[in-house]
Amino acid sequence: MKCTRCRKTQAAVDLPSHHSAFCPECFFVFFRRQVEEGIRNFSLLSPGDRVLVCVSGGKDSLVLWDVLMELGYDTEGLYIDLGIEGYSSRSREKVQSYAGTRGKEPIVVDLHAEGVPIPLAAKSIRKEECSVCGKVKRYFFNRVAAERGFTAVATGHNLDDEAARLLGNLLHWDRDYLSRQHPLLPGAGEGLVRKVKPLWRVSELETAAYGFLKGIDYVIEECPMSEHATSLVYKDALSLIEEKMPGTRRKFYQGFLEESRRWKEEGADEENAAALPGACAVCGAPTYAEVCSFCRLKSRVTNPGDVLKTFYGFQGRS
Amino acid sequence: MKCTRCRKTQAAVDLPSHHSAFCPECFFVFFRRQVEEGIRNFSLLSPGDRVLVCVSGGKDSLVLWDVLMELGYDTEGLYIDLGIEGYSSRSREKVQSYAGTRGKEPIVVDLHAEGVPIPLAAKSIRKEECSVCGKVKRYFFNRVAAERGFTAVATGHNLDDEAARLLGNLLHWDRDYLSRQHPLLPGAGEGLVRKVKPLWRVSELETAAYGFLKGIDYVIEECPMSEHATSLVYKDALSLIEEKMPGTRRKFYQGFLEESRRWKEEGADEENAAALPGACAVCGAPTYAEVCSFCRLKSRVTNPGDVLKTFYGFQGRS
Repeated sequence: MKCTRCRKTQAAVDLPSHHSAFCPECFFVFFRRQVEEGIRNFSLLSPGDRVLVCVSGGKDSLVLWDVLMELGYDTEGLYIDLGIEGYSSRSREKVQSYAGTRGKEPIVVDLHAEGVPIPLAAKSIRKEECSVCGKVKRYFFNRVAAERGFTAVATGHNLDDEAARLLGNLLHWDRDYLSRQHPLLPGAGEGLVRKVKPLWRVSELETAAYGFLKGIDYVIEECPMSEHATSLVYKDALSLIEEKMPGTRRKFYQGFLEESRRWKEEGADEENAAALPGACAVCGAPTYAEVCSFCRLKSRVTNPGDVLKTFYGFQGRS
Repeated sequence: MKCTRCRKTQAAVDLPSHHSAFCPECFFVFFRRQVEEGIRNFSLLSPGDRVLVCVSGGKDSLVLWDVLMELGYDTEGLYIDLGIEGYSSRSREKVQSYAGTRGKEPIVVDLHAEGVPIPLAAKSIRKEECSVCGKVKRYFFNRVAAERGFTAVATGHNLDDEAARLLGNLLHWDRDYLSRQHPLLPGAGEGLVRKVKPLWRVSELETAAYGFLKGIDYVIEECPMSEHATSLVYKDALSLIEEKMPGTRRKFYQGFLEESRRWKEEGADEENAAALPGACAVCGAPTYAEVCSFCRLKSRVTNPGDVLKTFYGFQGRS
């Protein structure tokens, strides 16, 4: 099959949901345009932005960093070492090696040094690793960005991630999560930096193809903690539908973004009335509570006595 | 495993989504209560209703008829012979034989005699069989009910059907379909009879178990026209999720009904402003157009010259 775009070279990437097949060079053009369009659709980034790209060592985040650099954005990479044996050091190597090829040095946050490696933190507060990990990462994404003067934080969530998350939120009719699911989360005040998902228009397959054709070396194994993640079940369900009806996933997520725009317009007053966050009494991060949820987590992990205090109202039991 | 309810007899039906397993007798009690609760939740039926039950010969509709009779409702069965070779006559036999065991004679509408057997009708207007079939059936459900003084039309849609339909409507963000998806469609004026889905709380598996344990003989084969129905793909996707997270399907549909109640409350004025339907100039059925969609379909099937007239504005081409 010949490339749909140049009609000369042999096609290497078949995209039924776009009724297209591209040779590598034309695929790069297609992919960059999709990302650009995704950025433009919601004004995610502007040329003057300093972008902190959150890189895990997986394909999505390294591809994101790569394409943002290609598009001319001023970027730095942030790697958070989650403290997961084996997996974390292998991921870190991939990030450092990729950064090296672009003459960069990633910013690294080490959760061991911060006192909250994920396996320990999850065990201490008896919660699922994925939920604890999400909270801790969001905290450091914002903290590093705010401290170092970045104007946007970018994560590598692709269309499949966002559609799966949307399906999960709809299956549980979670109004709160639904109202916040968007490629753009605006910043607030000094301390809360804008968060963007520039890959929201491209699928997992497209991202993987870009990474492969660009020769980006990423960590292929999934995080060992995510084995039972419910998001994987939602992804499987959507893949089953996508296979029979190519393009459904894209229409589903884009249709939702259209709908959510209407919801927001209808509830515009509510939105405007939302208060700005205050500062955490411990670390100064933006929070609506007195102490931010990360500092509360950290205190429970590093000082288990506090947990008892919280639970029983006194220092230990006789 | 012992029955969760009586704790005496061996359980025959395992229902992980209810954290229960029942012996046959206790399962009947459970099933009837679920249907009763589904009826009560939205005031689908009241004791004085005369209920026209639409029976296809499949398990869902025969189980519906059975359980409504058990619950003491005044019911008659309506069978529509779709004119699908082999399948229609086998279905008709199952309906007649079941009705016989309850001392009943079903009302029969024969689409051959009406001039619109489904395969011919679909071919004539070049549309999918399932969509034409839905339209024709809805027309006769209402017409028979209105002509014979029934106060409600009941169909056998179960939880799996409704959840699959909801998923499809959400994947395409079809506002119109979403706003009308409900176990109760109220009647309007003289001619439009209330439509209800009393099985909306029970799953396909529960309905099948009820039919099997009650010894109801139904047509097992699926309609040969429905092989490529998209609803089957949505069902498969939801089954995949349900298997990993029992109870998700129920929460999904019940959560939607909660949400849609809010939407309706918020848009209450719009709702109240909706006009009553007028009467079709040909058959008198309720419609918002001058001639109802069934009569337009019938005229195109039985008098193909009209199609040309519609398409080209004159009687045939030279």
